Amino acid sequence: MTDKYDIVIIGAGPVGLTLSTCLARWGYRIKHIDNRPEPTPTGRADGIQPRSLDLLRNMGLKRKIMAHDPAKVYEVAFWDPNAKGIHRTGTWASCPKFIDARYPFTTLLHQGLIERAFIEDIESHGTQIQRPWTITGFQNDGKDPDYPVEVSLAHVDGTLSETVRAKYLFSGEGARSFVREQLGVKIHHKDPIAHVWGVMDGVVRTNFPDIKMKCTIHSDAGSIMVIPREDNMVRLYIQIASSTDPDWHPRKTATAEEVQRRAKAIFKPYDISWDRVEWYSVYPIGQGIAERYTLDERVFMGGDVCHTHSPKAGQGMNTAFLDAVNLAWKIHHVESGFATRDILSTYESERKKVAENLLDFDAKYAKLFSTRIPSAGEVAGASSAGPEENDFVKTFKASCEFTSGYGVAYNPNSINWGSEHPAQHPLFLSYEKGTNLRTGRILTPATVTRVVDANVVHLEQEIPLNGSYRMYIFAGEPWRAATALRDLATHLANPKSFYSAFSHRDDSVDRYHEVHNPHNNFISICTIFNAARSKISIQEMLPEVFARYRDHVYADDVWDQRVPDAKAAAHAKMGLSEEKGGIVIVRPDGYVGCVVKLEEGKGTAEALNQYFSVLTGKNLGEKRAAL
Amino acid sequence: MTDKYDIVIIGAGPVGLTLSTCLARWGYRIKHIDNRPEPTPTGRADGIQPRSLDLLRNMGLKRKIMAHDPAKVYEVAFWDPNAKGIHRTGTWASCPKFIDARYPFTTLLHQGLIERAFIEDIESHGTQIQRPWTITGFQNDGKDPDYPVEVSLAHVDGTLSETVRAKYLFSGEGARSFVREQLGVKIHHKDPIAHVWGVMDGVVRTNFPDIKMKCTIHSDAGSIMVIPREDNMVRLYIQIASSTDPDWHPRKTATAEEVQRRAKAIFKPYDISWDRVEWYSVYPIGQGIAERYTLDERVFMGGDVCHTHSPKAGQGMNTAFLDAVNLAWKIHHVESGFATRDILSTYESERKKVAENLLDFDAKYAKLFSTRIPSAGEVAGASSAGPEENDFVKTFKASCEFTSGYGVAYNPNSINWGSEHPAQHPLFLSYEKGTNLRTGRILTPATVTRVVDANVVHLEQEIPLNGSYRMYIFAGEPWRAATALRDLATHLANPKSFYSAFSHRDDSVDRYHEVHNPHNNFISICTIFNAARSKISIQEMLPEVFARYRDHVYADDVWDQRVPDAKAAAHAKMGLSEEKGGIVIVRPDGYVGCVVKLEEGKGTAEALNQYFSVLTGKNLGEKRAAL
Repeated sequence: MTDKYDIVIIGAGPVGLTLSTCLARWGYRIKHIDNRPEPTPTGRADGIQPRSLDLLRNMGLKRKIMAHDPAKVYEVAFWDPNAKGIHRTGTWASCPKFIDARYPFTTLLHQGLIERAFIEDIESHGTQIQRPWTITGFQNDGKDPDYPVEVSLAHVDGTLSETVRAKYLFSGEGARSFVREQLGVKIHHKDPIAHVWGVMDGVVRTNFPDIKMKCTIHSDAGSIMVIPREDNMVRLYIQIASSTDPDWHPRKTATAEEVQRRAKAIFKPYDISWDRVEWYSVYPIGQGIAERYTLDERVFMGGDVCHTHSPKAGQGMNTAFLDAVNLAWKIHHVESGFATRDILSTYESERKKVAENLLDFDAKYAKLFSTRIPSAGEVAGASSAGPEENDFVKTFKASCEFTSGYGVAYNPNSINWGSEHPAQHPLFLSYEKGTNLRTGRILTPATVTRVVDANVVHLEQEIPLNGSYRMYIFAGEPWRAATALRDLATHLANPKSFYSAFSHRDDSVDRYHEVHNPHNNFISICTIFNAARSKISIQEMLPEVFARYRDHVYADDVWDQRVPDAKAAAHAKMGLSEEKGGIVIVRPDGYVGCVVKLEEGKGTAEALNQYFSVLTGKNLGEKRAAL
Repeated sequence: MTDKYDIVIIGAGPVGLTLSTCLARWGYRIKHIDNRPEPTPTGRADGIQPRSLDLLRNMGLKRKIMAHDPAKVYEVAFWDPNAKGIHRTGTWASCPKFIDARYPFTTLLHQGLIERAFIEDIESHGTQIQRPWTITGFQNDGKDPDYPVEVSLAHVDGTLSETVRAKYLFSGEGARSFVREQLGVKIHHKDPIAHVWGVMDGVVRTNFPDIKMKCTIHSDAGSIMVIPREDNMVRLYIQIASSTDPDWHPRKTATAEEVQRRAKAIFKPYDISWDRVEWYSVYPIGQGIAERYTLDERVFMGGDVCHTHSPKAGQGMNTAFLDAVNLAWKIHHVESGFATRDILSTYESERKKVAENLLDFDAKYAKLFSTRIPSAGEVAGASSAGPEENDFVKTFKASCEFTSGYGVAYNPNSINWGSEHPAQHPLFLSYEKGTNLRTGRILTPATVTRVVDANVVHLEQEIPLNGSYRMYIFAGEPWRAATALRDLATHLANPKSFYSAFSHRDDSVDRYHEVHNPHNNFISICTIFNAARSKISIQEMLPEVFARYRDHVYADDVWDQRVPDAKAAAHAKMGLSEEKGGIVIVRPDGYVGCVVKLEEGKGTAEALNQYFSVLTGKNLGEKRAAL
């Protein structure tokens, strides 16, 4: 008898752990192995972007991360050579005000502590990571149609081995991937220049004033990047070799002492010395992207297997988190019968495009910097949302969006509505018409008051990462919306609607205390009224379908500095009518799927049914069902 | 040989644990006993006020509390009888906007989880709580002048006993205190009416819409108080008997089933039923205050030993926290040679007055409510800082300040400067002249940017509860303040100044990484400039004395909704000149001690030296030293 699993996950770095965490929570049977005997003890990746922190909070892991008192980077300082050595030429926000972020900073903490937060969560859901084990072979032989992939695993010392069958295999092995090699997938190097980097974590003494800031230092003695860390540590990245050097060799190395000597020279006229070095490593890196992320939509790859970045961009771990979450809910929707297998193709198309954009921007940005130094005026201008935008400012802004994680924009496809989408009901709204939201982008954050307990909450965080689509009903003014809400409820109650067609089958389960998924596992509903909290009566103002989500009814009555004149700030930020509202469908990973007008009659439900018909491959809704 | 301790603490409830936590961190030798075999398993006190949450954060314990996902109460709802049963007559904020609070809500979590956060901290500093042990006798016999108090302790089963000597004995035994009884200290009952309360924690099902709010329900069937809890629980307080009843008996009781039956009647027309009851208890309570908190300033009492409250006010645990912190730093300053023993007398005078005020307000407030029901307009008016203030609104506002914890105002005395204070330098500022701050009140919260790392931080939290006075130098505009800062630094560097007279004796200790106390243990310094962060150079703009506190230099460059027109919001909120600044001395427990003008010359240092001369009993400063 061969053991059967929903998925075999190779590698317990950020991408594998994130995938495992999601799928373990949603009840999947997972075989998860890693070839290291223990989680990362020191060093490695350490930068959590603002957008990733949103995600970690949505997963309920932010508090565990923050308990370690990580360093927070709010600004980046640029230092350039002058007669005395180096001087600061400018600083700017790492996540400037024009980006509407809850956490406008990068969080720095060593990878091992981040991994541990995931591992505890995975273990609490019954999955253990098997160490130190490795993958020795696999094939999608389809011999068992339900578990088409055979995977061979072995203890790294070769004493033990096992063969299992799985619905999916996922490689999160890192840049040197056995799976990728076996599949024959090539890495495409966008930037032909490769580098060897030295990286050193330690506690220093220095009179360099920006030692607690992220800094890029160019000096006549070389270049260095400074990144503050938890526990009073600082990380230095130093470029040891570049493929543009005349004596380039990718195996070129340097001792810790050599790097410290170089650093001392670069920091002049400031002094620097080390109390202790916690971690030191040298590694060559090129910026590359795998040509494919999957060949058969059974064996998937993600994280460093698919894309490697210069450490300068601080992207590696963050891109890994988002790769994993993107794949997790799609596998979940396919395996639980909500979506067709077609949705799986969007993993590669969405995530590969993001990686390509990231590397393009990084190259463009680096080039702009190598050719000219921005003026103080440009830097100041770029940090606000002013009208004057030269090339530098434009590139800077786009770059900030990318490095903060908010630049991720998925193109229109079956899940991100657009003008080419098969569903073309007149009530769909777009960035060009009727809403500020863009499909394929994250939902704009908004602060509202929860009606049941008067708590002031972050609307975008109210539905946890539970694998469900999030349906935000911005209901406008209660008296205006009453009929539209009732009509929508009536059409959703139709057994053929996207809402009712997937309702819980088992009525014997007591769901009285179920907050997010009382009716089905694929849609969680939030209703937001343009009214003061004390004026909202859930029982009187909401049809039973929506009133059942009683913990997810909100008053849009919190003032917001970004829309100071709005009466209903959340409505206004979404660009929806404060009187009439609108419906926003958000994917389980937080990106906007579609936006629909809230109107009396059947139109709103029709549009939503059409949108979900494409995903689910079912003829949802009344009209279609009657055909 | 008798074991010797700095302090013996009896009782490991909130007051004893808080005292123990502070003193253990500051290096004192503690004998801490409790007569229960384990920490509180369920029930008991559970409400953490906004002000207490500030304190817990300042102690670094807030995250541990919040990790349990406590309920948060933002509003209170009032329900009154009508023809159908009950109806809501109004709701209002539990910490309205006119109070400038970081956390405008009450945090509800069972006492055991709160205690555990303290216990872990105490144990990490090397003190164990000895259980189940009790106190059997004590006397301040002075036989050992350094350890004047003898304390006899025994295991509750009588099998073991020991006698120790201590500098101090503290009773945090709760309402039935052996120590208080032995001292013959009487409880004075302000309100002659006593009550028997039933309290029940459990998970319920109900269609009562405010079950997740704090509610006061008056009905023809009786009265009830609803308090939401963690883990989907709700607490109900129900009055079982009152000394105004004709058949009053303080031992009157009721079963859980009787209370549930009463609750069902009170909640009509709504339904309520219980999934489970976690805890149920009946207890008689009167509102009383001990006539003394100490007789000899060696044996102290605090918490429920000294004051008992109706559960309605939600004050018990919060008053206990603040009793303990108030005493902790005073003992610390006496024992470490900074302050004279005189300071110990302020424990009783400050904390007893607070307890009296609390009970007075509670009685006044309750009376106002029993005579008339406020109109919706009054409730709305009371929640804002409007001009029209009738008696109800005034009492409501004062009451909100008390219940949120921000109403605590210590009267002028040797540590809270006032017009009768022995130090009467012309540069002292007062609420009447030159500042919005009031001595004996908490420092106004303000958000600023830390210069070294550009982090946006809460200024009032930047110095942890480290037992030090906090010296906030609001330095105004850098170019204007330069001379005044340099002059102040010069006078502080004088060996007879309050700053230098207590400097670290041992120069062999490496203090490079010491952030809060690089120079002495009694003063931590923060400097706040009215300038953008990027314009502040610590090395160039600050004399070495202040530059040494490099992690405590801030830019007052964050916009604040409460002072929308201010350029330097923190300066403006304190009511100090945005150009010229001012000095705020804050006690180790966060209350303002004095406010002094920042001027060129020696005046500022003179005023500060005079203030600290009173506390320390030393002739500090140049002029005095020359006498």
